[in-house]
Amino acid sequence: MFPDARILDVDLTNQRIGTKILPGEIYRLYPGGSALGVYLLLQEMEPGVDPLSPNNMLVFSVSPLTGLPISGISRVTVTTKSPLTGTIGDSQAGGFFPVHLKANGWDAVLFRGKAEKPVYLYIDGEKAELRPAEHLWGKVTGEAEKLIKEEIGDDRLEVAQIGPAGEKLVKYACIINMSNRANGRNGTGAVMGSKNLKAVAVKKAKPIAPFDKEGFSTLTKNILERLKNNPTVDGLGKYGTDGDLLGFHEAGFLPTKNWTTGWFPEGAEKITGTTMYDTILVERDTCYGCAVRCKRVVEVPGKVDPFYGGPEYETCATFGSYCGITSLETVALANQLCNMYGLDTISCGATIAFAMECYEKGLINKNDTGGLELNFGNSEVVPKLVEMIAKRKGFGDLLAEGSYRAAQKIGGDALSMTMSVKGQELPAHMPQFKPAVGLIYAVNPFGADHQSSEHDSFLTMPPDSQERRWIAQIGTWKGYEDTFELDDEKVRFAFDSQCYFSILDTLCLCQFVWGPCWELYGPSDLIDLCKYGIGWETSLFELMRVGERRINMMRYFNAREGFTKADDYLPERMFTPLPDGPSKGVCVDKEKFATALNTYYQFAGWDPETGNPTEATLRKLSLGWLLDK
Amino acid sequence: MFPDARILDVDLTNQRIGTKILPGEIYRLYPGGSALGVYLLLQEMEPGVDPLSPNNMLVFSVSPLTGLPISGISRVTVTTKSPLTGTIGDSQAGGFFPVHLKANGWDAVLFRGKAEKPVYLYIDGEKAELRPAEHLWGKVTGEAEKLIKEEIGDDRLEVAQIGPAGEKLVKYACIINMSNRANGRNGTGAVMGSKNLKAVAVKKAKPIAPFDKEGFSTLTKNILERLKNNPTVDGLGKYGTDGDLLGFHEAGFLPTKNWTTGWFPEGAEKITGTTMYDTILVERDTCYGCAVRCKRVVEVPGKVDPFYGGPEYETCATFGSYCGITSLETVALANQLCNMYGLDTISCGATIAFAMECYEKGLINKNDTGGLELNFGNSEVVPKLVEMIAKRKGFGDLLAEGSYRAAQKIGGDALSMTMSVKGQELPAHMPQFKPAVGLIYAVNPFGADHQSSEHDSFLTMPPDSQERRWIAQIGTWKGYEDTFELDDEKVRFAFDSQCYFSILDTLCLCQFVWGPCWELYGPSDLIDLCKYGIGWETSLFELMRVGERRINMMRYFNAREGFTKADDYLPERMFTPLPDGPSKGVCVDKEKFATALNTYYQFAGWDPETGNPTEATLRKLSLGWLLDK
Repeated sequence: MFPDARILDVDLTNQRIGTKILPGEIYRLYPGGSALGVYLLLQEMEPGVDPLSPNNMLVFSVSPLTGLPISGISRVTVTTKSPLTGTIGDSQAGGFFPVHLKANGWDAVLFRGKAEKPVYLYIDGEKAELRPAEHLWGKVTGEAEKLIKEEIGDDRLEVAQIGPAGEKLVKYACIINMSNRANGRNGTGAVMGSKNLKAVAVKKAKPIAPFDKEGFSTLTKNILERLKNNPTVDGLGKYGTDGDLLGFHEAGFLPTKNWTTGWFPEGAEKITGTTMYDTILVERDTCYGCAVRCKRVVEVPGKVDPFYGGPEYETCATFGSYCGITSLETVALANQLCNMYGLDTISCGATIAFAMECYEKGLINKNDTGGLELNFGNSEVVPKLVEMIAKRKGFGDLLAEGSYRAAQKIGGDALSMTMSVKGQELPAHMPQFKPAVGLIYAVNPFGADHQSSEHDSFLTMPPDSQERRWIAQIGTWKGYEDTFELDDEKVRFAFDSQCYFSILDTLCLCQFVWGPCWELYGPSDLIDLCKYGIGWETSLFELMRVGERRINMMRYFNAREGFTKADDYLPERMFTPLPDGPSKGVCVDKEKFATALNTYYQFAGWDPETGNPTEATLRKLSLGWLLDK
Repeated sequence: MFPDARILDVDLTNQRIGTKILPGEIYRLYPGGSALGVYLLLQEMEPGVDPLSPNNMLVFSVSPLTGLPISGISRVTVTTKSPLTGTIGDSQAGGFFPVHLKANGWDAVLFRGKAEKPVYLYIDGEKAELRPAEHLWGKVTGEAEKLIKEEIGDDRLEVAQIGPAGEKLVKYACIINMSNRANGRNGTGAVMGSKNLKAVAVKKAKPIAPFDKEGFSTLTKNILERLKNNPTVDGLGKYGTDGDLLGFHEAGFLPTKNWTTGWFPEGAEKITGTTMYDTILVERDTCYGCAVRCKRVVEVPGKVDPFYGGPEYETCATFGSYCGITSLETVALANQLCNMYGLDTISCGATIAFAMECYEKGLINKNDTGGLELNFGNSEVVPKLVEMIAKRKGFGDLLAEGSYRAAQKIGGDALSMTMSVKGQELPAHMPQFKPAVGLIYAVNPFGADHQSSEHDSFLTMPPDSQERRWIAQIGTWKGYEDTFELDDEKVRFAFDSQCYFSILDTLCLCQFVWGPCWELYGPSDLIDLCKYGIGWETSLFELMRVGERRINMMRYFNAREGFTKADDYLPERMFTPLPDGPSKGVCVDKEKFATALNTYYQFAGWDPETGNPTEATLRKLSLGWLLDK
């Protein structure tokens, strides 16, 4: 039988803490993470809520699998209505916090209302209490974490918190745990700030044991061999996510200077993962129980503190190539500041890059920026701007709204320079190179996201490669000579793989370990994980429907908020030929993209007129209760 | 990599035999059996073909798995345009023929055209030849098989053939192998007859070996223990499919006297499987490599020859309770005659039952029947009628057209007495008791069929039973207190389980071994079978889409022929309260059924106005090529 979900229900307004039990037969439909989060929101929240009002709800959730002794298992989802996009907000983070939240007996923590004064929640098993946090307000993450550990008297606590940016309601403020793991996107940190909720601290506890130890060991016993035989994951471990940056540039598809080009000859080599490995890297960090060790720890004496970890590929791109910055130290410093203040590095770097283009094209000038010279490549200005944004100081106050809102205020052609979908800035994978990823940027319920579907490039690998064999299990075995096509099969690949990634964000699994193209654990291993881990005899058919259900719940949430297909777009720049480098002349074919979008709706069972789930699709996914509400 | 399909392409008109190769990457979309058959028909056949004309095609097909050393693996599909229904025609049979067809190196045999004179096909590995069959024409199956073996000089041949009924184009003539296994339904035997094709004989050969012997042995090594611990399959082996007949009667849901009641107090005990076991059963027979041994061998000295096997549940019902017959010997004799002459026992028994009701209600009389008294319960008349039908003699010529066409000729209220869908007579599971099965009767592309979806009754078992745990893998874990409900979840169960059974009819697996409710091998074992058996790393997600693809190809075939939702119905009698016994007053709720039908179309992605697959659904299932044709 499927386990029940135990949910800590925290009313911040009344300072009341209760427990909700979701019976296993319902939990199985929404088995954790993001699916559980959006389920709880749809159950209780009315549409039209101001995301930064007490009426918004915010859910931390893990899954029935969280804490099992295997790689890629320690992830936590935060679900809320996003202040950045106005859509459902969804964000995942790793670390040790997720496992210990679950080890204390909780599948989710639901926050509602608003505390009169700053508080934090402390969880020790069944006990949970709200504690005053006025003395923590304004503190950067490292300091606040230290203070919390001291006052609880336990330096092994796990703390997920906001920094000053969340307190200041920066639209892309994030939630940080371990001072260097982020629930990065969608501005979930601002929602915590609006609720006067500084942090959630959990005492370490003993994680769950596998249901079938012997079976489970078949998955884990050869992990080092799996790693050794696996160049992809081995490279990820050695060079981190930034290992691919140089390759993207060489192909002409590294977003550079606010996406005006895909080519960064003056800087790519300086900010790529191998350079980081050879220069500032001092350690490889890991999440709970994970053998991959993809996390970076970097140090620049007197400038960058290893305590705050190190930059991912996305961060190297957004603060590096997006801004034309060629200094890895600057990127690392910007990363550190984001972790200290609690800012999403993607939206932060991309918003600065946007401002730089506006500056270079004369839409803003020194009068607007308080004297800062926002030219592409100006390394000095970037860390300053990060602080100004976090504190909403001067020009930073405008950029704290994100590029889309800032563009609306700047006026002129500025809107054409915001590289965002639904108000969320694009991550650093170019739709011109990966049109299926671009399609998902457009339709993803919580704005542009690169971790919500598989990338087109894997379909160019040999058909007998492990990657292709695993992709075949989720329904696509057509190969492509290059990545550029966007035919029916590619659209289906986009949708099917989106459903698969949606499973991962529901079960709170890391895509670098459990994604279908990372050769560590494939879809069939996932079935074994459920079976041996918790005795859940599932199938990829059941799980794919779980994934599809989550996506549909999110789209339904958005539909209630008034979102339609008009909000599913790509910035016009994607349809304009790239100007130089190896990708010169390449762009997304606008007509084909429109056709693919329509095909996607049809494949998803959404109304092509509105882009929203049809009643039939909701009912097929056991979501008829939404229609009855 | 997926294996290629090797197809023997036999043009009967020109007596030319060729070989077609379907590359593995296409074969994987239509991996055998019925899916491969309908694929070949859709590739080459135009709509509007007279089923009994040379322009019809007929395909025998097996699958990449056929011949693996495991239970439930030896099945062959015949696909053609059905002369009974005018729809796609589809029928499965077991035996040893399927394994040896494959062992000779063939995934399918495609027949086209019409031989000038009767012929049969003989296959010995790569060699295949058409041989004259004029001397076999008119012979019953046992004789013809003997003669073929003698003239080839090999008494170990496997022969699939028609009897005199197929030669006479009886609309529900079947194809018989081993003289007692039938591709029973849809009148496929008449198509062979129309082509002057008497038989396909295959030399025995060495079946394929598992790709991974060690892995494969995990499935087979404990088979006897699996059987011993399994009351369902153990009971099936001991008492055959007829073991449940008495139980159906006791519940009030044994179709009796042409479905005018569900209660057969005077006869149920006399014709049920335990009685057969205690009286006329002399042996339990098996298909290739199968440990279940569900097939009956019965003997009545001087009357019923064990050579022709013994009756299934369906046969005991259609010749027994449908006709009010209480004599098991009569049922066994009728069964033998059907196997000798090559007649589908379901349609044959049901058509006689229909005639009996017409007779009792005065729509026909002795003048019509040539003096026969067609009262319910008249044992003497039944064997006579079977012979008359097979030979199209006298009144038999009318009944040889099936109950639907006969009713049209009889006129009056006769149409209300034909218990058929799309012209095919209902099998013996009552929609009043199993509304999800009834729904599939209505929508199944090749007419009413009880082996195309899972039965509602399993959903009333305990949630931790193996049956329920396996059903959960195909998407339904809601339980029901009784079977009668027909809500959204039940409709989805009907559709999902239809897709699962569609996998089985594609991979040519026996539902009694591989169906989700028989406790021998469940969906997760099926994945292992593909992996260890042929190195196909698939998932239940891929397979369910295979199943859905097959159903959609069939519906598309029908749509080309002009079929619409108007052809998806149940006989009115299902909506009329049953008159007596434990089921007194029970009927299918007409309004709920109409709603469920509509829901089914929506869940299936079919146009609710026409009941046919939408373009989007076809494209999603990689069937866009149909639209381009």
